[in-house]
Amino acid sequence: MPGQRGLFIPGPTNVPQAVRLAMDISMEDQRAPDLPSFTLPLFADVKKVFKTDTAQVFLFPASGTGGWEAAMTNTLSPGDKVLIARFGQFSLLWADMCTRMGLEVDVVDVPWGEGVPVEIFAEKLKADKAHAYKAVLVTHNETATGVTSDVAGVRKAMDDAHHPALLFVDAVSSLASIDFHMDEWKVDICVSGSQKGFMMPAGLAILAVSEKALAARKAAGMRRCYFDFEDMMKTNKDGFFPYTPPLHMLRALRAATDLLLSEGLENVFARHHRLAEGVRQAVSAWGLRLCAAAPKWHSDTVSAILLPEGFDSAALVRHAYTKYHMSLGMGLNKVAGKVFRIGHLGDLNEIMCLQALAGAEMAMRDLGVPVTAGSGVGAAIEYYRGATASSALKNAA
Amino acid sequence: MPGQRGLFIPGPTNVPQAVRLAMDISMEDQRAPDLPSFTLPLFADVKKVFKTDTAQVFLFPASGTGGWEAAMTNTLSPGDKVLIARFGQFSLLWADMCTRMGLEVDVVDVPWGEGVPVEIFAEKLKADKAHAYKAVLVTHNETATGVTSDVAGVRKAMDDAHHPALLFVDAVSSLASIDFHMDEWKVDICVSGSQKGFMMPAGLAILAVSEKALAARKAAGMRRCYFDFEDMMKTNKDGFFPYTPPLHMLRALRAATDLLLSEGLENVFARHHRLAEGVRQAVSAWGLRLCAAAPKWHSDTVSAILLPEGFDSAALVRHAYTKYHMSLGMGLNKVAGKVFRIGHLGDLNEIMCLQALAGAEMAMRDLGVPVTAGSGVGAAIEYYRGATASSALKNAA
Amino acid sequence: MPGQRGLFIPGPTNVPQAVRLAMDISMEDQRAPDLPSFTLPLFADVKKVFKTDTAQVFLFPASGTGGWEAAMTNTLSPGDKVLIARFGQFSLLWADMCTRMGLEVDVVDVPWGEGVPVEIFAEKLKADKAHAYKAVLVTHNETATGVTSDVAGVRKAMDDAHHPALLFVDAVSSLASIDFHMDEWKVDICVSGSQKGFMMPAGLAILAVSEKALAARKAAGMRRCYFDFEDMMKTNKDGFFPYTPPLHMLRALRAATDLLLSEGLENVFARHHRLAEGVRQAVSAWGLRLCAAAPKWHSDTVSAILLPEGFDSAALVRHAYTKYHMSLGMGLNKVAGKVFRIGHLGDLNEIMCLQALAGAEMAMRDLGVPVTAGSGVGAAIEYYRGATASSALKNAA
Amino acid sequence: MPGQRGLFIPGPTNVPQAVRLAMDISMEDQRAPDLPSFTLPLFADVKKVFKTDTAQVFLFPASGTGGWEAAMTNTLSPGDKVLIARFGQFSLLWADMCTRMGLEVDVVDVPWGEGVPVEIFAEKLKADKAHAYKAVLVTHNETATGVTSDVAGVRKAMDDAHHPALLFVDAVSSLASIDFHMDEWKVDICVSGSQKGFMMPAGLAILAVSEKALAARKAAGMRRCYFDFEDMMKTNKDGFFPYTPPLHMLRALRAATDLLLSEGLENVFARHHRLAEGVRQAVSAWGLRLCAAAPKWHSDTVSAILLPEGFDSAALVRHAYTKYHMSLGMGLNKVAGKVFRIGHLGDLNEIMCLQALAGAEMAMRDLGVPVTAGSGVGAAIEYYRGATASSALKNAA
Repeated sequence: MPGQRGLFIPGPTNVPQAVRLAMDISMEDQRAPDLPSFTLPLFADVKKVFKTDTAQVFLFPASGTGGWEAAMTNTLSPGDKVLIARFGQFSLLWADMCTRMGLEVDVVDVPWGEGVPVEIFAEKLKADKAHAYKAVLVTHNETATGVTSDVAGVRKAMDDAHHPALLFVDAVSSLASIDFHMDEWKVDICVSGSQKGFMMPAGLAILAVSEKALAARKAAGMRRCYFDFEDMMKTNKDGFFPYTPPLHMLRALRAATDLLLSEGLENVFARHHRLAEGVRQAVSAWGLRLCAAAPKWHSDTVSAILLPEGFDSAALVRHAYTKYHMSLGMGLNKVAGKVFRIGHLGDLNEIMCLQALAGAEMAMRDLGVPVTAGSGVGAAIEYYRGATASSALKNAA
Repeated sequence: MPGQRGLFIPGPTNVPQAVRLAMDISMEDQRAPDLPSFTLPLFADVKKVFKTDTAQVFLFPASGTGGWEAAMTNTLSPGDKVLIARFGQFSLLWADMCTRMGLEVDVVDVPWGEGVPVEIFAEKLKADKAHAYKAVLVTHNETATGVTSDVAGVRKAMDDAHHPALLFVDAVSSLASIDFHMDEWKVDICVSGSQKGFMMPAGLAILAVSEKALAARKAAGMRRCYFDFEDMMKTNKDGFFPYTPPLHMLRALRAATDLLLSEGLENVFARHHRLAEGVRQAVSAWGLRLCAAAPKWHSDTVSAILLPEGFDSAALVRHAYTKYHMSLGMGLNKVAGKVFRIGHLGDLNEIMCLQALAGAEMAMRDLGVPVTAGSGVGAAIEYYRGATASSALKNAA
Repeated sequence: MPGQRGLFIPGPTNVPQAVRLAMDISMEDQRAPDLPSFTLPLFADVKKVFKTDTAQVFLFPASGTGGWEAAMTNTLSPGDKVLIARFGQFSLLWADMCTRMGLEVDVVDVPWGEGVPVEIFAEKLKADKAHAYKAVLVTHNETATGVTSDVAGVRKAMDDAHHPALLFVDAVSSLASIDFHMDEWKVDICVSGSQKGFMMPAGLAILAVSEKALAARKAAGMRRCYFDFEDMMKTNKDGFFPYTPPLHMLRALRAATDLLLSEGLENVFARHHRLAEGVRQAVSAWGLRLCAAAPKWHSDTVSAILLPEGFDSAALVRHAYTKYHMSLGMGLNKVAGKVFRIGHLGDLNEIMCLQALAGAEMAMRDLGVPVTAGSGVGAAIEYYRGATASSALKNAA
Repeated sequence: MPGQRGLFIPGPTNVPQAVRLAMDISMEDQRAPDLPSFTLPLFADVKKVFKTDTAQVFLFPASGTGGWEAAMTNTLSPGDKVLIARFGQFSLLWADMCTRMGLEVDVVDVPWGEGVPVEIFAEKLKADKAHAYKAVLVTHNETATGVTSDVAGVRKAMDDAHHPALLFVDAVSSLASIDFHMDEWKVDICVSGSQKGFMMPAGLAILAVSEKALAARKAAGMRRCYFDFEDMMKTNKDGFFPYTPPLHMLRALRAATDLLLSEGLENVFARHHRLAEGVRQAVSAWGLRLCAAAPKWHSDTVSAILLPEGFDSAALVRHAYTKYHMSLGMGLNKVAGKVFRIGHLGDLNEIMCLQALAGAEMAMRDLGVPVTAGSGVGAAIEYYRGATASSALKNAA
């Protein structure tokens, strides 16, 4: 089918040219004597994306799901108790994994559309005088509902309770797009992946692990081998890996990290906020509502948009794909059929968001959703006009 | 600058993935014994794009300008008289080249916004009893003004006058996008290029030459060597070339031709018409006018849009590029500052056109052009909804 | 450094152009409705490479090491006894993993240079009347020593003993290069990876699992989640995945599988044997010996070559890399410093092997190894001349 | 056919990864306001490759043949007399073009295997008191015979005769590989192409033109348009082009120029000399002779090797291509069937040359040419060992 397909899902995101080219290379020797001159600076620079000086970065050939498993198997023991809130498909799956891996999981169910209930966490942590909780798990950005949670708030609750549990954060769909402070928030393990803010294909789990979490591995009773931090550390310190690394992905990570750092993380975050806000303006202009229940939960990387009663969002997503060659995100689990999602993260700009909005409008109108043609796009245009600074020409005299 | 840059100029057009990949190859041996098994079928299939059984295809490493030069130097002699109409930057340059190459040029000036004046040509041809005109030159699609001319009409005028002149057509910005009939219209030389409907980078002049034009080369008194048809024919017949061919471009041409023929030329033309019509609907909704003076001149590959008095289209194009990372076409020569152009040809679909329109709206509003945000996009959405058939999923059960 | 770097390690292997291009694509929607039309035939065709009709294929974003872990965690329980022979770095690591994952490991140590001791295995299996062994683990091709083992022999020993243990084979450096019969040999789990015979970058573990092994997962007491067969099966059956798949790698796998099947597996194996034999002829001509202790252990994918006493193979590998821009495989663990390795697998032909041999000769002579310049290359040339059939030109008339 | 095909022809040469990637990009807007910030430094840096401060660089979408035509049509008039020596297929074709373009050509025929006869040129120039010669044409490196001529010698002869003719040099197969001094040698037009020392695909003619040659264009009576210097200069001065430029090729040229300048031109020349000398050592070891009649004619970019009487070099080239997947250069015109050629220029290193030699040996032995297997490779190995400095590892500590 002619023309570029629109990819407006919350990951995999559009791969920028520099990242695509970085991968399009001849295979390399993973034991080459000059490999460390590539890998060691890469490890160092990826840390900057997590805003950490003290944590250690781990790069596993895996998806983000593998990253979750790495986090728990390296630090916990079967029977350990963890605290987690469940309010979307990804927090749900993470909680499930905890159960399957033999942890005792204290799940706080929250309506889908809200995020981590900091107050409830605070109470539970205070009540846990025996420090039964070994880890507190926070889904920073719930991709299924477009909800961002307050990691700093959870950290404050932990500190207020003087609770020594580890703090794990799933930042798969937030890192490198929404502000994240590994060190300031004293996050112990942050799990991310390649296919969202890092603008790469899927296939690399990217973790940052605090010294405290690393220390926990000695006592951790879960069996592990592939995801073992120890094996990685022994070889990573010299710039190598315990098994064949996906070097083309590491080259892509180098390019992606360069893009992020050269744009400047604060600019990256501001851009994501601006682009997201334009999408939200469009949703309002359409007369629709977000799944996110209140502005404080608004995600700057993905918007889950509720269709009016009587409309099937799965049909909408399929229609947009089939007729207009564009991918929107479908609703998952509890919100299946109810929401469609626009991913607005990664290598994105204003005209790409306008394209997503125009295409969504067109598809909704085909299905009879009562939105006015041009209304959402028009609202976003007006917002972007004011919010976007005109960049000087690169290399201009 | 983050995000994909929008390319909405009338060439070079967006290169589809299949064409990009076809070029991204190791260098090849231009004298390899199996090269003819690649080149000979390519020559045959490119002919189909011209809708010709009888003409010969020539592929020169050159721009379309080189194609013009090839056409005249292989068939005409200094002092030969040619008839041409001038109504835009490209017809103007072609007429200029005729003069510079020593031809006697009868130029019919027509207001920019109109096309070849078939009636005037008809009169002139009838009046030319001595057959002084050796060639009639037609710019099928004037890229500068978004005007498509009536080649069949010119042929009819020639036939009615029983005039033996050669018929040359510049189809650089129409071939493979707007219907073209080499054989039916008895076109003698059609000049095209790689960077428009063929969806490739610039660098290949693609010509089809009738037997009548080939016969004319014996008497043609213009000196030529690089662009000599004879040299090409001697080697092309066996699948080779008189000098090192740009094989990566020929591989791209193979991929592009495959895309065109597998979509079906009639579908390609219908798609271009549909996409163009949506753009025209948007222009109307904006309350603006096309440079093309009447619907019969409307081009399905490029729309030149007149800004209201007092607005500078060069500033608009520059602003859109600088602030919104999108390229629109600027006005050239007589219409410089007055029109901006949207190229809507090549590897294009509805959501790409909507992106162009949304971006143009946003930029126009920044400059104070009185258009309503969302109006053009909305109009195009409504048009596309009805005009676009839902394609079945590829490989669907 | 100018010129193409020579990559003569036993993986990652050289990626053929078709595979490279297959990955160099825009990101795709992993929930697209037409994705199954791509994935389901892929699963089916990859099975052909394993020569299985009945097993199920699993594709994990992981290295081969992850594949090992998937095999054991899905079928065994802590404390289960397994039988394995150790005769090189990779069989050693696999045995280690078994221990670390809580299995009781019966390790048969064999001199490095030999392979699985079928007779000893036969005795042990016969003696195990209680069927304590739950799995027999065979490293088909030990990459560290260039030794290929007799999987069919092990199967026969198991059958003779009427032993019900599962048969696991590590075919990471043999599959798609050396003949392998999943069904005929009644292999229960075969673990392979993307970066060897599949000629792709590292990052995909490719497994085939028999119905018997799948049945074992119900009773398997090891905890697992990322590598869980069940999760994969539930979604794979419809063409999808339990977490974001690395679609660019699956596209590459499609291209690689097409290359393998269109060359024909038997031709692929014959080519590997021929190329390997030329390398062995060169080693003889140099007056050197292989690490493989007897012809029956000769590997057709990698040759580990013993340097004479007093020479350091690590220095040789480093020298070749630094001065001549070519990667040879270094000696690992017990044979570190003693052997260097030439990988001769994947997308390889005669002139590539000659290049490896010429480069190795040149580097060895620099280090004073007493080999005659041109001797190895000359021997290989003479062998290849006779062994290589002249292929007809593709598309030749 | 599996494995990388060997490309050992004297152009197109192997494209280095950095150049390949530089072209593999989205299309660009050739009128973008920031294009000059790319093109103007490119023009400046390409001048360095010609070793000129004063000449102007021209980049035409064309082959080297187009470059020849540009040189003469911009500076000469029909009937002008030029002096040229003919000693191979490319000097022959250049002389032919002169005739066809209406020049009076004084051709000095020299045995194929020798180069420009400086003494004869000196005599002729001295004798031409009337300064009838308007241009002296020198083929710096005759690709057909592997002969390099003495441009400085010709310049000296011109100076000694106080002859004001223009000096044109065809450096298509020498520039960026063999030392060339535009300014020091007072060359007026140097014609080169993209597909040799610039390591790019074919399709770009690259010229440097002296102020004296530019001044000559006013009086030049040849008609020209596509190749007109004037049109280029008017737009190039601002960083633009008179017609759509092949921007992907200019991006490749940027990458190629960066590679050349970062290696250092003198290092590039030394490398070519070293690689060529190894090939010549191999030819001697085979007991064969070069077409180049004496060492002073030896080309560092291509060796034309004479087969013994009774052997058909065309059959050899075809055999090597068909059986061993490698391209050697065939003999052209007078030396057709007699010589085969090894191109050793561009992105090349020692192991690539050894591969070419090994493959040629293997193919020759198949055809019964009495060369000893391993002899040529062995000789080259011994030469390279001594001549090649071990480069320090990039980024090594």
